Amino acid sequence: MLSIRPAVAGDVPLLKTMIYEFAEFYRFPAFITEDQLLRDGFSSTPKFRALIAEWAGEVAGYALFFEYYSSFHGRSIFLEDLFVRAQFRSKGVGKALLARVAAISQQDGPFGIVFNVFAWNSPAMEVYKKMGATFWDDLKTACFKDDALRALAESADQYD
Amino acid sequence: MLSIRPAVAGDVPLLKTMIYEFAEFYRFPAFITEDQLLRDGFSSTPKFRALIAEWAGEVAGYALFFEYYSSFHGRSIFLEDLFVRAQFRSKGVGKALLARVAAISQQDGPFGIVFNVFAWNSPAMEVYKKMGATFWDDLKTACFKDDALRALAESADQYD
Repeated sequence: MLSIRPAVAGDVPLLKTMIYEFAEFYRFPAFITEDQLLRDGFSSTPKFRALIAEWAGEVAGYALFFEYYSSFHGRSIFLEDLFVRAQFRSKGVGKALLARVAAISQQDGPFGIVFNVFAWNSPAMEVYKKMGATFWDDLKTACFKDDALRALAESADQYD
Repeated sequence: MLSIRPAVAGDVPLLKTMIYEFAEFYRFPAFITEDQLLRDGFSSTPKFRALIAEWAGEVAGYALFFEYYSSFHGRSIFLEDLFVRAQFRSKGVGKALLARVAAISQQDGPFGIVFNVFAWNSPAMEVYKKMGATFWDDLKTACFKDDALRALAESADQYD
């Protein structure tokens, strides 16, 4: 019933649709375009990889991941998205996607799969904990973007 | 007094020393070796980049970063480490390293610089907030590694 395959360039519209479904589920704004996904994921030097899960021939979810570097542990994988469409939940689709990412990670030896979970999504956290995930509760994630990033970049001149 | 330069292969022993100083400061175990850093950071396809800060000719700190991919926003930078040695703090070294990473990020247009801060390090958080950082307080970071990762990878077979 379930099959998982690597996303190809022709999946970009589908991938974009599911990324926006994922963003809506997580109440987060998304701005990604098909052009960006095509350029960034399906060139000769891709910035990410994606897997598509199908259930009885219907697209059920996806995983999007890329290489990450832990200065303490070395090469690892960052699992940016793991999403299963509502009608396909509780069928093991998410676990199958995660297992495939883990199998891929074992091929080239990174130390682990790092990912973020929303703190309000306690059902997901419980599932991950049961599967043996280590939670780094001490860490907060932050970002410099837009004006804050531009101001920082401009301030670099004063150190030259 | 302050200069910032890209790390080169000859900096690997120094980089490793500072990574362990950083790990000790953050009370986190580190396992990285010089061989890993040399292979991963200074080959033709580096997994990370690093900057070294010097204050009056003495090594004062470093930044280590790499490409990250946000499915909602596109290409970005992950700043894995930003570290200033104790005797060089409060001299603007950290801000200068961050500004240089921001300037580099502006060259090839990623949407932002993503980073983690330890929740107990409120002085650092205050500084970042003043600089305009957006904190994603909702996010928790987790990892599958060691036995949990192996078990996941082995379970992939059942979906083939």
